[in-house]
Amino acid sequence: MKATIERATLLKSLGHVQSVVERRNTIPILSNVLIEAKDDGSLRLMATDLDLQVDESVPAQVGQAGAITVSAHTFFDIVRKLPEGSQVELTAADGKMQVIAGRSRFNLSTLPRDDFPVIAEGELPTRFELPAQTLRQIIDKTRFAISSEETRYYLMGIFLHVADEKLKAAATDGHRLARVTVDKPEGADGMPDVIIPKKCVGELRKLLEEVEGTVEVSLSPTKVRFGLGNAVLTSKLIDGTFPDYNRVIPTGNDKLLKLDPKSFMEGVDRVATIASEKTRAVKIHVDRDKVTLSVTSPESGTATEELPADYGADGIEIGFNARYLMDILHEIEGETVEVHLADAAAPTLLRENDKSSALYVLMPMRV
Amino acid sequence: MKATIERATLLKSLGHVQSVVERRNTIPILSNVLIEAKDDGSLRLMATDLDLQVDESVPAQVGQAGAITVSAHTFFDIVRKLPEGSQVELTAADGKMQVIAGRSRFNLSTLPRDDFPVIAEGELPTRFELPAQTLRQIIDKTRFAISSEETRYYLMGIFLHVADEKLKAAATDGHRLARVTVDKPEGADGMPDVIIPKKCVGELRKLLEEVEGTVEVSLSPTKVRFGLGNAVLTSKLIDGTFPDYNRVIPTGNDKLLKLDPKSFMEGVDRVATIASEKTRAVKIHVDRDKVTLSVTSPESGTATEELPADYGADGIEIGFNARYLMDILHEIEGETVEVHLADAAAPTLLRENDKSSALYVLMPMRV
Repeated sequence: MKATIERATLLKSLGHVQSVVERRNTIPILSNVLIEAKDDGSLRLMATDLDLQVDESVPAQVGQAGAITVSAHTFFDIVRKLPEGSQVELTAADGKMQVIAGRSRFNLSTLPRDDFPVIAEGELPTRFELPAQTLRQIIDKTRFAISSEETRYYLMGIFLHVADEKLKAAATDGHRLARVTVDKPEGADGMPDVIIPKKCVGELRKLLEEVEGTVEVSLSPTKVRFGLGNAVLTSKLIDGTFPDYNRVIPTGNDKLLKLDPKSFMEGVDRVATIASEKTRAVKIHVDRDKVTLSVTSPESGTATEELPADYGADGIEIGFNARYLMDILHEIEGETVEVHLADAAAPTLLRENDKSSALYVLMPMRV
Repeated sequence: MKATIERATLLKSLGHVQSVVERRNTIPILSNVLIEAKDDGSLRLMATDLDLQVDESVPAQVGQAGAITVSAHTFFDIVRKLPEGSQVELTAADGKMQVIAGRSRFNLSTLPRDDFPVIAEGELPTRFELPAQTLRQIIDKTRFAISSEETRYYLMGIFLHVADEKLKAAATDGHRLARVTVDKPEGADGMPDVIIPKKCVGELRKLLEEVEGTVEVSLSPTKVRFGLGNAVLTSKLIDGTFPDYNRVIPTGNDKLLKLDPKSFMEGVDRVATIASEKTRAVKIHVDRDKVTLSVTSPESGTATEELPADYGADGIEIGFNARYLMDILHEIEGETVEVHLADAAAPTLLRENDKSSALYVLMPMRV
């Protein structure tokens, strides 16, 4: 293998693939990135953790086709430190990969490409396209609600499914639920219900940072593939059943509070300063056209803040985890958030308005 | 106590004092900041960890003089989250301090000001002034060499003393030594040799960020006080004897290597990428007008880099800890660094040139 590539191009691509590689690996080859120079003038970089793989191709001058694997983090660090604008020459020979750029010369340990595990995609019968912007929105508005509890592994991802002729994405950790509904793309009919793991969501979001246009999504009941320009992300899906989350979306909450989400979020943040780290509980007292946020802490004292609001129903007092409430308010883009309340013990529904694609449910806390 | 102050002024000053307060305290009052409103139209803020105290005064509208203490970190967080441009009203009454700004209202727990410990400065007979710029330089060029080993507590600070009609500052951890020599300021004659603790150095450096003009330094054998505009930093000194560091400054190193410190540092950084985390050893081979940096790692492979240099003596091969070498090169400002070598086992002297105020000694490693 012999190839020459611009440092900037190599660095960007390595940045994408190396972040899949775990810092600690019991299987040595999982620490490595596969580097393959192809006769068509491209360099392919690939990394995997056995559940998730990123495969990216970038243009390079290829002197001799071939493939090798080297430590992903070491190679990334080396390229990062090479002088800007330099040309990087990669040569594989005698079980080593030589990296030459400017006055620097590295001879890196390698493992053979044949040992590099590739996720067998199998058949991916469902195929559709989504605008990159839509996919970014789906992720941003749901990922914060993904559970981190290993015991409920089926909640550790975003649930993607088709229902009511729409494509729906949902995430919940039992305390809050986020759901985004978008137009069903062509080709999504009959797609299996899938749960996309948190790590895949994170890597996909990073790759989406630089993508415009559309993303190709291919699915089977066990695998998903995202095609984003030069990069392909393939992931195993979570093998479990996502609970019927529609049961927790309240439909009869008849007390409607409307207010500015930014002031609401900042106010909650301020009064929560004195809340205990453990509960982070903030009390919300809703009265005619007025909201009073308050926190009482045995150690620190009390905090209150009044906010103007639009509210005409009977007064109500309800408590929430400040962090969870702020996570939701952070995703509301308009100038008004609708808070649909029932009583102090019932799930509360939040959304921008009845046309918004995103909907949130938050469980109250006793305060 | 009753005072009104601009949020920005209060935030800046609280930022200075709160960083002295440790996150965990067994004595509750040490978590607090003393707030004192004075009839002269100033608000005084003070924090301490019993070894170090910061005392800063800022202009405020004082309605009623008085003093109280509240949790430093909580108060800082609250003020940080208050809306920009707001006026903050502070009122102490009934064992609470009320904070009102915009629509927010806090009632914070307090402890009485009489319980707040103040460091007794005692007599500080030595007094002199130093330009803020000089003090910044002294700190920047020596602090990286301060030891972190509790067993050698007398190395855990910057040693400041007068010798040869100069003011000298030195720090060492046994592996490297940094020394800065500046003109002896008026009033420094007969000053005691002092060791300024690391935490004091850190807080002083933060305060210096915003100071122009001169800093008033007052000293006794046990205490030091720095007067910087509105702020006064008082610290206990390390009660110990700093070793006679002049013994380790080599005087007979006759092999002189000159090269560009920036290329040198970047080259060391690059080849050290593959060095083991533990030793970080880099080998330096010096030949006529050429330096070859190299690292060999059993796991990762090899790395080499050649640099042009100015060298006429016999060839030599010597090893250094890459981190330590880079720390020193980072502080060399000119376009050339002088490396005075003797042999592979002898302390090496580094400096910009024979006129530079800073001088560094680095112990070699066997490689």
